Amino acid sequence: MAEAQAQALGEFLDDLASERPTPGGGGAAAISGAMGAALVSMVCNLTIGKPKYVEVEGELKEVLVRSERLRGELTKAIGDDVKAFDAVMGAYGLPKGETDEGKAARTAKIQAALKEATDVPLECARLCAEVIKLAEVTAEKGNLNVISDAGVAVQSAYAGLMSAALNVRVNAASIKDREFADGRLSELEALLGEAGSTTLKTYDVVKSKLG
Amino acid sequence: MAEAQAQALGEFLDDLASERPTPGGGGAAAISGAMGAALVSMVCNLTIGKPKYVEVEGELKEVLVRSERLRGELTKAIGDDVKAFDAVMGAYGLPKGETDEGKAARTAKIQAALKEATDVPLECARLCAEVIKLAEVTAEKGNLNVISDAGVAVQSAYAGLMSAALNVRVNAASIKDREFADGRLSELEALLGEAGSTTLKTYDVVKSKLG
Repeated sequence: MAEAQAQALGEFLDDLASERPTPGGGGAAAISGAMGAALVSMVCNLTIGKPKYVEVEGELKEVLVRSERLRGELTKAIGDDVKAFDAVMGAYGLPKGETDEGKAARTAKIQAALKEATDVPLECARLCAEVIKLAEVTAEKGNLNVISDAGVAVQSAYAGLMSAALNVRVNAASIKDREFADGRLSELEALLGEAGSTTLKTYDVVKSKLG
Repeated sequence: MAEAQAQALGEFLDDLASERPTPGGGGAAAISGAMGAALVSMVCNLTIGKPKYVEVEGELKEVLVRSERLRGELTKAIGDDVKAFDAVMGAYGLPKGETDEGKAARTAKIQAALKEATDVPLECARLCAEVIKLAEVTAEKGNLNVISDAGVAVQSAYAGLMSAALNVRVNAASIKDREFADGRLSELEALLGEAGSTTLKTYDVVKSKLG
């Protein structure tokens, strides 16, 4: 790693550890997912063009296009998390108002911010679940010399998914519109169920190839 | 996140995704562990000094000292992984030699590099296992307002441990000194067994507190 990168990464970890609430778990979730996507891309890049893997080249080229798109979206999600958190804190910080209308307006802003702060980590969870599916393909078909990286990819993306899930839950719990909240929680459960079994399977595939 | 940090993080992810073998899964493992340690520290920092949590303040101050030390060691481990990988590649790249002595010297260098490349991720795995234990304490005793971050901490550290484990295995598999390799693999299995159950338990503790 270049010196400037190492320094910036160290500073990011300092900020994560600090008593400031952002960056926090939501940002860490998106970074885990983005690292997973990057490692899927790495395995594709080290497989494509190798004569031994010519039969899977077409499929891995498609995986690479998708993993690079997901990496971009997950990198963007790091900042989205901060914005959504700040909006919730900002709404709670509004004056409580003395009239019923004033109170209702504040409550409506809080509820709108909480919905956004549920949808942002849910989108992160969806993206991580996509990365997990791509990691499965690279674990099965990628270059054996870097197959351990496909296993790291799936673990990173799964940590991102499980982390994002906590942020969906914590915000959904305070939403009064239960139809909205329950719909999001149902989608989350479905993502977790499928991705959990794919992660276990993919990790075992990698382990079995390490000799 | 500051603009310079976001840019450096994006560049690191570009390097991770590229066809260059480092940074790779070993570096990602160390970063996951360091994010876990940073989030343990964050929960401690947002609990210490709060009147409501005065009873656990002493314990969380001790946790914070340990999580910050672990964060420093895991940040250093990112670079150690690159060095260990480069040493293995360098040894394999040595001329094969035409005499028995020349061949034996090259083999000895490869084997020494493989031992180092087993011990470096094993140390990363040990550090991640320590982070998991601290995340358990913060999930049980930390400020409820940021308890989801304790859950993200344990998931990140567990991804680091599971990822480092793959790098221990891949290098241990090529080591001829089986007493050395089997000793490392036994220690790894013990770490994985204990940390796996602590991770599940800790995540459930957090989930139950999210309401």
